Amino acid sequence: MQQGLLIVISGPSGSGKGTLCGHLVERRPDIKISVSATTRAPRPGEINGVNYYFLSREEFKKLVDADGFLEWAAIYSYMYGTPVGPVREMLDSGQDVILEIDVQGGLQIRERFPGAILIFITTPSREELERRLKGRGTDDPREIDVRLKWADTELMQAGGYDYVVINDSVDNAVRKLECIIEAEKSRPRRMIIPGWLNH
Amino acid sequence: MQQGLLIVISGPSGSGKGTLCGHLVERRPDIKISVSATTRAPRPGEINGVNYYFLSREEFKKLVDADGFLEWAAIYSYMYGTPVGPVREMLDSGQDVILEIDVQGGLQIRERFPGAILIFITTPSREELERRLKGRGTDDPREIDVRLKWADTELMQAGGYDYVVINDSVDNAVRKLECIIEAEKSRPRRMIIPGWLNH
Repeated sequence: MQQGLLIVISGPSGSGKGTLCGHLVERRPDIKISVSATTRAPRPGEINGVNYYFLSREEFKKLVDADGFLEWAAIYSYMYGTPVGPVREMLDSGQDVILEIDVQGGLQIRERFPGAILIFITTPSREELERRLKGRGTDDPREIDVRLKWADTELMQAGGYDYVVINDSVDNAVRKLECIIEAEKSRPRRMIIPGWLNH
Repeated sequence: MQQGLLIVISGPSGSGKGTLCGHLVERRPDIKISVSATTRAPRPGEINGVNYYFLSREEFKKLVDADGFLEWAAIYSYMYGTPVGPVREMLDSGQDVILEIDVQGGLQIRERFPGAILIFITTPSREELERRLKGRGTDDPREIDVRLKWADTELMQAGGYDYVVINDSVDNAVRKLECIIEAEKSRPRRMIIPGWLNH
């Protein structure tokens, strides 16, 4: 059984990575998005095991101690992480899995899964990111400034990623994501051709 | 000006690589196939500079001595090679270039152009290659055997290639080639995003 691909998708807030992931799995139902664990409380309508695995602080810490996360981080006063169990099961059954996480998490993944594919999503320019963040109208100017500075930092680290996809239009960007996955499935180490030994 | 991509396409005789390259440049007229040099005489209808650069043995050797070939080889009693000048010009002007050459040539290219993309084309199985070679009806059984053994050798070396594309159908395989090119254009080292420094 050929292992599934582990696909990490990162990008600044406002890059549209969530929308792209949604469209991608709609067009490719064979790819699944990994469910994260969090210590924050479920919001109305959120379902345990679908939107998140909702854990108590104690459960989360136990899992950290047991090396049960592929990556985890404290964001504000909550903990977020990718439980290793479900991801490993899906990969072993040949299922491709998407992790939508931040760049630091992505680089942690690379250490544990050298075969992971790291994709960074961004806007066509810094100006455009600023425009999109302001256009949402949900953040105050200081918050937007923090997000932009954070985007600068993430983009600098994105050189350690395998691919950068410019989200100029959803269609274009999703098509590029599909191409990257297709191309990665054509790597010699992932191919077995009858009559020829695997090289 | 962003450098063009140098794309090496190799594969055993019978893999259909020539057909695929033809369809690829038909669908992507922005990609050009490099013209090789040879010491064999032009066949009826062949045009100098279009099908091949036709050189005398002396001219060819001079070019070898002047380091004027990206790769070259003697096949039977003729010499074949990829002149470096036109390829470098096209790449520098941002033009993507395909070299349709054998695996040994491809691995030579990698040394001189570490950024080259190496793609190996093959049939879905060894059996299928045998069937296609026999189906052409142009080679005697001994010649087919030689070609199959040569294919085995090339496939073993194809592990040093970046991608392996199975030519199960022309449409499928050309689509994969397009995806690989698209994906390779999304490499961080090939991207410049306004407002952000190139990383």
